[in-house]
Amino acid sequence: MQKASISESVIRRLPRYYRFLSQLEEAGIERTSSRELGVQLGLTASQIRQDLNCFGEFGQQGYGYNVSALRRQLELIIGLNKNRPAVIVGAGNLGKVIAANIDFGAYGFRLAGIFDIDRRICGSEIAGFTVQHMDTLEEFCNETEPLIAVLCIPQEAAQETADRLKDLGVKGFWNFSHCDLDADRSQVQVENVHLGDSLMTLSYRMPKDD
Amino acid sequence: MQKASISESVIRRLPRYYRFLSQLEEAGIERTSSRELGVQLGLTASQIRQDLNCFGEFGQQGYGYNVSALRRQLELIIGLNKNRPAVIVGAGNLGKVIAANIDFGAYGFRLAGIFDIDRRICGSEIAGFTVQHMDTLEEFCNETEPLIAVLCIPQEAAQETADRLKDLGVKGFWNFSHCDLDADRSQVQVENVHLGDSLMTLSYRMPKDD
Repeated sequence: MQKASISESVIRRLPRYYRFLSQLEEAGIERTSSRELGVQLGLTASQIRQDLNCFGEFGQQGYGYNVSALRRQLELIIGLNKNRPAVIVGAGNLGKVIAANIDFGAYGFRLAGIFDIDRRICGSEIAGFTVQHMDTLEEFCNETEPLIAVLCIPQEAAQETADRLKDLGVKGFWNFSHCDLDADRSQVQVENVHLGDSLMTLSYRMPKDD
Repeated sequence: MQKASISESVIRRLPRYYRFLSQLEEAGIERTSSRELGVQLGLTASQIRQDLNCFGEFGQQGYGYNVSALRRQLELIIGLNKNRPAVIVGAGNLGKVIAANIDFGAYGFRLAGIFDIDRRICGSEIAGFTVQHMDTLEEFCNETEPLIAVLCIPQEAAQETADRLKDLGVKGFWNFSHCDLDADRSQVQVENVHLGDSLMTLSYRMPKDD
């Protein structure tokens, strides 16, 4: 598997394949086809085949795909079967919602700690974790070795905090701060979440005559 | 402008163009080129030109683009200059975070009300709004005519609530419930937010040897 050669758009479609296959499996459907997947995901059958071929040989001519087997393969490819430690930095409203609502285990991670700079928040409990002060981040990282950090901090603090975490061995950032983190992709991976982009897309699609 | 013919991926890139141009403008940069935009956004110069040509003639041969003018054009195209009423349905943790943290005005909307089904939450105040009970939704919609609804409710309730809001004239859904809403795109527009997809993408990109 040549990860480096797989395009960004194919990678972005993987979660959708996985979600849809999970739905099919839950509905008790055993078999599907490129055509069926394509209809559901708004792609052509040939694009589905091309996408999946990036990762291996899954379908069988004349049969299509076994839903459970393909779902399981994608699970392994995406890494959802892992149990990698994650840390949330920023225990404000957003950090709280993410701690309480994101099922990290379903994505191959486990929440291992929550940090904040505000001493008034430190010591309080969120989703079963006691919020720790940023002063103790080094110690925590040495012990727990979080693989990813979820950044829920103000934009101004994001880059500096990310650099600090990177030096502590963090390899990936799920970034909710309102900025695109500057990162050397050969060393760390960044997922910048821009909720506003989604709302802008909806705005664009609204009738123009209102 | 033939909106129907513009591809999903071009539409999805519009917010990124807009954000990057806003950054350039803030930095006092007056002029940019397809090549520069391309480098920043990970696209080719020709793709940038093609994308922008979907919406009009913006650049000038040998000059490139005037940053402020192009940013302003995109603002109008996306509809960010509007002031369309939005309603949040679901005043739990997520609803609260969205009410408090999303600057609706920056996206061409204004928050007009927050609703919940739980009478213990109703009457409490969030981001300057008193949470109203779903029983009064009809009355509210008749008066305020919200154009979009932000769904922050459990998955089980999402489709039914969306149908009810659609019948009340809502034309767009920003859906944070963990499901893809079923919608006739000719009548309503749906933006399903799947934070998990983003975390899965990060999971995929993590080193495989951990």
